[in-house]
Order: sequence, then structure tokens, then C-alpha cells
Amino acid sequence: MKILFIGDIVGDIGLEAVQHYLPRLKRKYQVDVVIANGENAAKGKGITKRIYQDLLMMGVDVITMGNHTWDQKEIFDFIDDVDYLIRPANFSEEAPGKGMVSITKNGETLTIINLHGRTFLPPHQDPFAMAEELITEAKKTSPLVFVDFHAEATSEKVALGWHLDGKASVVVGTHTHVQTADERILPKGTAYITDVGMTGPYDEILGTKKESVLYRFKTNMPVRFEVPQEGREVFSGLFVELDTTTGKAKSIERIYINGDKPFKG
Amino acid sequence: MKILFIGDIVGDIGLEAVQHYLPRLKRKYQVDVVIANGENAAKGKGITKRIYQDLLMMGVDVITMGNHTWDQKEIFDFIDDVDYLIRPANFSEEAPGKGMVSITKNGETLTIINLHGRTFLPPHQDPFAMAEELITEAKKTSPLVFVDFHAEATSEKVALGWHLDGKASVVVGTHTHVQTADERILPKGTAYITDVGMTGPYDEILGTKKESVLYRFKTNMPVRFEVPQEGREVFSGLFVELDTTTGKAKSIERIYINGDKPFKG
Amino acid sequence: MKILFIGDIVGDIGLEAVQHYLPRLKRKYQVDVVIANGENAAKGKGITKRIYQDLLMMGVDVITMGNHTWDQKEIFDFIDDVDYLIRPANFSEEAPGKGMVSITKNGETLTIINLHGRTFLPPHQDPFAMAEELITEAKKTSPLVFVDFHAEATSEKVALGWHLDGKASVVVGTHTHVQTADERILPKGTAYITDVGMTGPYDEILGTKKESVLYRFKTNMPVRFEVPQEGREVFSGLFVELDTTTGKAKSIERIYINGDKPFKG
Amino acid sequence: MKILFIGDIVGDIGLEAVQHYLPRLKRKYQVDVVIANGENAAKGKGITKRIYQDLLMMGVDVITMGNHTWDQKEIFDFIDDVDYLIRPANFSEEAPGKGMVSITKNGETLTIINLHGRTFLPPHQDPFAMAEELITEAKKTSPLVFVDFHAEATSEKVALGWHLDGKASVVVGTHTHVQTADERILPKGTAYITDVGMTGPYDEILGTKKESVLYRFKTNMPVRFEVPQEGREVFSGLFVELDTTTGKAKSIERIYINGDKPFKG
Ligand SMILES: [Fe+2]
Ligand SMILES: [Fe+2]
Ligand SMILES: [Fe+2]
Ligand SMILES: [Fe+2]
Ligand SMILES: [Fe+2]
Ligand SMILES: [Fe+2]
Ligand SMILES: [Fe+2]
Ligand SMILES: [Fe+2]
Repeated sequence: MKILFIGDIVGDIGLEAVQHYLPRLKRKYQVDVVIANGENAAKGKGITKRIYQDLLMMGVDVITMGNHTWDQKEIFDFIDDVDYLIRPANFSEEAPGKGMVSITKNGETLTIINLHGRTFLPPHQDPFAMAEELITEAKKTSPLVFVDFHAEATSEKVALGWHLDGKASVVVGTHTHVQTADERILPKGTAYITDVGMTGPYDEILGTKKESVLYRFKTNMPVRFEVPQEGREVFSGLFVELDTTTGKAKSIERIYINGDKPFKG
Repeated sequence: MKILFIGDIVGDIGLEAVQHYLPRLKRKYQVDVVIANGENAAKGKGITKRIYQDLLMMGVDVITMGNHTWDQKEIFDFIDDVDYLIRPANFSEEAPGKGMVSITKNGETLTIINLHGRTFLPPHQDPFAMAEELITEAKKTSPLVFVDFHAEATSEKVALGWHLDGKASVVVGTHTHVQTADERILPKGTAYITDVGMTGPYDEILGTKKESVLYRFKTNMPVRFEVPQEGREVFSGLFVELDTTTGKAKSIERIYINGDKPFKG
Repeated sequence: MKILFIGDIVGDIGLEAVQHYLPRLKRKYQVDVVIANGENAAKGKGITKRIYQDLLMMGVDVITMGNHTWDQKEIFDFIDDVDYLIRPANFSEEAPGKGMVSITKNGETLTIINLHGRTFLPPHQDPFAMAEELITEAKKTSPLVFVDFHAEATSEKVALGWHLDGKASVVVGTHTHVQTADERILPKGTAYITDVGMTGPYDEILGTKKESVLYRFKTNMPVRFEVPQEGREVFSGLFVELDTTTGKAKSIERIYINGDKPFKG
Repeated sequence: MKILFIGDIVGDIGLEAVQHYLPRLKRKYQVDVVIANGENAAKGKGITKRIYQDLLMMGVDVITMGNHTWDQKEIFDFIDDVDYLIRPANFSEEAPGKGMVSITKNGETLTIINLHGRTFLPPHQDPFAMAEELITEAKKTSPLVFVDFHAEATSEKVALGWHLDGKASVVVGTHTHVQTADERILPKGTAYITDVGMTGPYDEILGTKKESVLYRFKTNMPVRFEVPQEGREVFSGLFVELDTTTGKAKSIERIYINGDKPFKG
């Protein structure tokens, strides 16, 4: 099974980048399943039902979220009605929505799990314990399991990667908006990367207008963080191929397209 | 001027990796100046005078530090006597040592500045203001300025990169121990990467034995973090070439050598 | 000189509590100067020009602020026009407003300084260094100096108290909204209390409706924090008397009036 | 039932203060049960078996702990053998020791529960959920339940107080080492105080030598925190009387004895 994952889509520029590159990447890699982190799709803050539908129309199969899950209040109205949007599974038991979903493509079933880190972040339920629990459940259906771990600290992310080596097929990190170069297949067969990076504005700070972020760091004064409407784009993704019998990864390849590194077909 | 930077050297395996690859890399890239972050060289915790001298003998010209600067108590005895060891310039005015040093190679002078982040970290002096101040001072001598920003959050690091675009020749991030894939030359000529990554054990968590780190994340119980003595190594570096007239970067290239990606001469 | 300090006034109930008790307390203690922390006066979030004027009319002489200083956007329009509103002096040099003010009553001048902590809080300028600097400046005018240190951690607050013993006449803590019982005169004459506590709703959580705060702690889900309009009130204050020749404190007395502990005239 | 609770005992001076005042307080209040937080009893860091035994001999019935539980490595050897030492119940399931204990005095049984906060602290298990669970269990035996909530933030502590109002007989906070003045009986009968404060050195910063703490705040440099062997003492406690039929509190009284406020028999 061939999987393409798209890192945190930020605002309109991020959505346009998906529109530009997703068709070409699907062709190039003969992708079976497309997963995208959509927590910043609505102008940097959460997701709307409209954007969810747009992303599905563009070819995304499953959308994962993160700390920005609840930024758009309308999500409370539709999260329990849509099938292919998941939020971190270790959010409160009282949170609406779900944290795991399975999808079948070309006769193979893949389960996608979304988890949230706790280092420098709120004390959600234990992602290490919950990962094991959910993977055990998922494996009753299929050996193919994909985990998006939305977290800040490299220590926590690398730790979850090793914790799940041989248990999950893929563990990707999201949230820092900067792609890491450490993609690898761990000894027991799990494809791993600390962070896939962000899909959105290329010439700003993590997708947010750099003037405002710089003002904040220089002054610690309040600022309104805005996502730009115009400018160059960056597309950050990951391609992995899985052995459908064993559930292990056969290959892993980073995708990083931007103003300096154009798409190569 | 051709510069090689080596990311956080962790313990004996890190020192061995420097010994293995530095001579080959110097040859391959015809390097003029070698800078290395040595904050974890002494079994993960700080640096000793002996290791400082060993690194210089191996071909390192300047050593930068970070949050682990003071881990080895002997550093208080020698930091003011050695020429090519710097610690974050924005540490307290009462801290011994210095945060900036200049080195002349083949007739060209490069100034190296070490700074420390404040997001998720102690409230050191403002690195944004101090960076500007020190760069202004350095530029009286030479337009070639290299900054090692030791920080946790991608937002703070990317922000400092843009803040110094056109002011510093190079801004590299260190501390997260995971190499990022976002190396680029910013519009006004500053070579930038969010994190160079770590040079040390390849099959552990940020260089620390994975059993102990995993136990900590699973239980929040105290553990002794140990750096292994044996195992495969990873070498994380960055090569940049500067225009000695303008001080701008001409090229930037990540170096990432490990068990899966061997050195290519 | 007799000083009454009122801890963080929270919303309308807080303003009403000031109206109820301030006249009686002024009479009881023969107060010369009234200082109040007003960072939560506007429904919990910052202060408006109208509330500033109302508090002055009620008998408050000087208003101090804290982390909520900028919550009401209109403050940017009036902070530089009003005389007796100060915000933490160790905020950015680019912040509008001022952090120190002097007031003369019955022939004696008192300088009030507002500072902000950094533990569990943003990396503002160093409050320890700035306190010394400002006090030195203030003492050129008068030995009477009052410091409101708006901070979270007891360690940082107690530390500033000892740091300023014999330098400031009074050091009070604010921000935690819970009055501490450790009021004392330190050996060199500085009146000190870790936190004066809050003036506002008595039966909520730090002045905020308890249902919302509890929901947040139980679920880590987003909630709108609201300050109630009705309910019992608590008044938290501190009375200190200073020797106008030496600037040292002669007496210190906590004031804590609430549903269980009625005012005693 | 008459209960005396002693706040965080810090080092030898804290142990001496217990020896000085506990007999007099037991006599004065006709105490049935004595509970003490002992997390700093061993020179500021944890507890030893010897100190555990000494405290029992001095008249303490049950000892609670906190973030310093594991500071003395010998605790791993004896925590499962001793009956009246509890550590936060919401520590990891893999942690040795227990978080709840019952004691019978004069025919009445009291259950003591120790919990740990998570704001500004590691992500332990949810103390809000666990409190309810354990109290439900405890009430099968007796309506008398005492909770020591070891936590930093006033918001989290006040929230747990209201959360348990009418469920626990008493909720005391510990950890900040500064006694708060907000003791009260909540509407449904729970005796509550945000922090009982510390029993130990009176003229230092939270019991630690003030020179070292000040140096840390002024410089952010590493320091060895030491607990003094000599100096004046402070005793911080709380007395509560419970109705043994309903489990509700009948009275609450703070105890705060120090160099400025001597014991009154
Ligand atoms: Fe995120
Ligand atoms: Fe994001
Ligand atoms: Fe490091
Ligand atoms: Fe570091
Ligand atoms: Fe406040
Ligand atoms: Fe505040
Ligand atoms: Fe303590
Ligand atoms: Fe503690």
C-alpha cells in the first residue's frame, strides 16, 4: 500500500499548494491513500466543514488534527457527522469526534490514529499507553496502522517512534511546522519521521506573517497572528510504501517542495 | 570562506563520529573553518578541558555550547582560559566565559556568536536584541558572522533567522538533536537551518539510552539518563560557503551521515 | 504614612466590593494613600478608561496592572494620557505607559513601582535588576517606595521580597488571587506579603465562574471564562504604616473580608 | 474527629519545629489524628526510613508526599513496607507505594488521600477523576475523608476544592510553602485551604538558603540549593474538626507559628 501524508495545511496558500501538487504526486507515486493534517486549514485556525469537503474533493482520504482542533466553533456541529476527520484520540473522553478511523482502498484496510503530545502542552491522556491500546484494537482488522503524533518536543516524538517500532506501520510527527530530515525505517519495520513540516506560506514564520511573530518575540506584547493570503508556497509531505502482509514499511521518502526546491515529476 | 558546522556532539560515540568523518569532510568540502556544538560532549553533559583540547586536535576551530554549558563543574576552572570555546552570549552578565569569538583563516576573519532561546527555557537576556548588538560590533571587523542559536521552539528559531536575514551570514539552530530539512538561503543572503541535529548514537532517543527516556515518558518517574558507549553513530552537520566581500551565503548543504545513509566522498 | 493596598479587583462584583468597603477602611485606618491592582477590573480582562476614572472617584489614588494589562484594546488609546495608572515596569521598552509613579499626600511623597514575574510567565526584562534600578531612582525623591510584584511562583515572590529588604518600604505580591498569610516586616524594615489576594466574587474560582474552570481542568477543552455578575463578594487588602523618615515599615495588617468573615469597624 | 495537619516539613529545622510544637498543639486542640506532609523532611529532599520512624514517634499518624517523593533513593526500599506513608495516588500505576490509607482513632476511621497537580507540573494521571474514584471507594468504609493536594497553581487547587465540596471532608493544598489565608468551609461542608504552608526555616526562601535562590533568580546559573541547619523556625498547620456522622467539617483554623507570631497555648 502506498501512502502520501501531507503536513499541517496552513490557510488558503496551503490549500492551494495541495491543489497544485496533490494530483501530480498521486500520479508520480501511484498513491493508494492520502492523509493530511488539517488543523490549520481555516486561515491557520482549525477547519470548517466546507474545507473538509474541499480537501476530500481534492483527493485527501483522511484528515487528522491537533491542538487547533476546536478553533472553529462550527466543528462542534459537524465533527460527529463526518467520517474521515479524526482528532487526537487522547483528548478527553468528553470530547466529541473520534481519534481513529479505518479506510479500505484497493482491497486493503489502513487504520489511521491521531495522538497528541504532552510535553510543553496540556496534560491530555497518556499517548504512549493509548497508542498501544488502539493499535492492538486496529490490528484485529488489518496489520496496516498509521499514526500522526501531533507534538512539540523532539524527545517525546522520537520516544513514541521507538515505543511503536514493530507495532505501527508508520509514525509521523506534526505540529512544529518544520520538516525534519530524520526519516527512516526503524529496526522492527516502522517508518518514522519526527515532523513532516507544514504546507502553506514559504516566506513566513511557520505560516504566520513574520512581522507579527517577530514583534511578539521582541516585545512579549499581544499581537494578532495572521496567515497571509499571498506569497510563495511550500508543500511538505511524506511518502511511504507498506508491505500489506506484514504491515511493515518497505520505503520512506520525504517530499519538500518550495520556492527553492521545485517539484520534480 | 567554507564553513563546516557540526551539531551537538553527544558523548564518546559523538566524539568518535567526529574523528571518523571530520577529516573526510574537510577534504571533500575544502573547509576553511570548523565549528562544533560541544554542550553534550562529556557523556551527554557539558564539556571538559580534555575534550575541548581533543576536539581542537581533531580539527575543530571553535566550540559553541548551550543549556548544558555548566554541567561539568570543571568548566568554571578553564572557561576563561581557553580561546575557542564560547557559551550563549545572552547568559547572565555574571556568567564566566564569553559568547562571541573571531577566528582568522586564510586571511579572512569569521566571528562566531552563540545565543540561547527562551521559549520553554529560562528567561535569559533577549536574544533578538543581543544578536543585533553583537553583529553590529562584529561587523566592524569583518562581514562574516556565524550564529549558533541554541533553542527549543521552531517558532523562535525561524523568527531569529528572519530577524537576522541580511545581518548574519549564517544562522543555525541547535538543541533539539533532530536535523531539520529546511536549510535555505533567505532573501537577503543569510544561510539558515532550524536545527543541524545531533552527532552521536544513532539508535537511541536524542543520543540518550532509549529505555530510560521511554520509562520517563511512560511513568513520569525519576530516571538516570545515560549516554551509551556502544552502537551505531550519526553525524549531523552543515556546510556553507560565504562570499567574503558581501558576507552573504553562496551555498548551503546539509550533511547527515548514519547507519542508513553512509558517507559519500 | 498609612497605605491601603487592594488586591486584583475582578469585574463588577470587585468594583462593588471596593465601593462598599473602601470608605469604611479609609476611616478605620486613617489611610493616606490607596493603591489597587486593576488588571481584572473590566469583567476580568484589563481595564477601561471609564473604570479607571470610577476607581479614582471611589478613592483609589494609584492603579497597578499585570499580565492582563492589554486585554482591553482601548488601553492603547488612554494609557499615555492618564497619570495614575502604571503597568509592569519590566515590560518591553516598546510598551506604552509607564511602570513607576510618585504621589504626594499630606506633604509626603510615595513612589509606586509595578513589576512582573517571569516564572511560568513570558521572559520580560529582569525584575530583580530593574527593581534595584528604579528604587535607586525613586529614593532620590523620597525614601517611601511601594512595589507591586505581579507574579505566579511563591519562590520568585519571596525572593524579590528578600532582595528588596531594606530597599523598598513595601513589597506586595499579586496575581494568584489567593491571599497568603505570611505578611511580615522583614529584618531590614520592608513590609512583605506573597499575595494580597483578589477582590471580587467569593464563591467562584479566582473570580471566574467555577463551572467553566472546572470543565477546563476536567477536559482540557476550550471554554469561555466568564466573571459572574451576581454573588457574594470578597475584599482582599493590606494595610501598612511607614516611617516617613526612614522609609521603613512600622506595621502590617492583612485585610480579608468575605461572606464568612464580615468587616469589623 | 479532630485533625491536625502539618505543612511540608523542611529539613532538620522543620523536624525540630514539629518536636517543639506538636505536643503542645495536640494538647491545645485535643487532636485525634495528626497528618504531615513529609516530602522535604530529609534536608529538603524526600524522606528516609529513619525520619519516617522519627515522625511517627513524635506523634504523626500519617505522612503524605509530593513531587519530592523519590528524592532519597532509599525510599524504593521501604515505601512498600511502611503502613502510614502515602505518595500522590495519581502517580504512575508502575510507581511503588500507595496513595490512600485509612486510620482508626477512638473508634472513628479517617481515610487520607494524596494527589498531585498537573499545572506547571508533569502530566500525572487526572487528579480530578481520581479524587472522585478514590473518595467513592473510601466512603464505603467511613464518611471521613482527608485530601492533601500537592500542587502549584492556585487555580487548580481552588478548582479541586470546589470539585470535592460535599465529597471530601477536608481538602488541603501543599507545595508552595507559603500559607494562604483563605481557609473556609465550602457550602456543602468541605473544609478547604489553598496551601497550609511550610514547617522549617523562617528566614529563608521557602526553606532554602536565600543566597542560593536569589543567585538563581538573578543569573539563571546553576546553584546547589541547600537547607540551613540553623535559624528561626516556622510551623504551619491546620486544625479541622469533623462531624463523624455526616463527614462534614464543623470548624477550620489555621496555625501559623513563627518568630513574629509565637505559639499561644
Ligand atoms: Fe499544532
Ligand atoms: Fe499546525
Ligand atoms: Fe544538545
Ligand atoms: Fe541543548
Ligand atoms: Fe489578576
Ligand atoms: Fe494576573
Ligand atoms: Fe514541599
Ligand atoms: Fe512540593
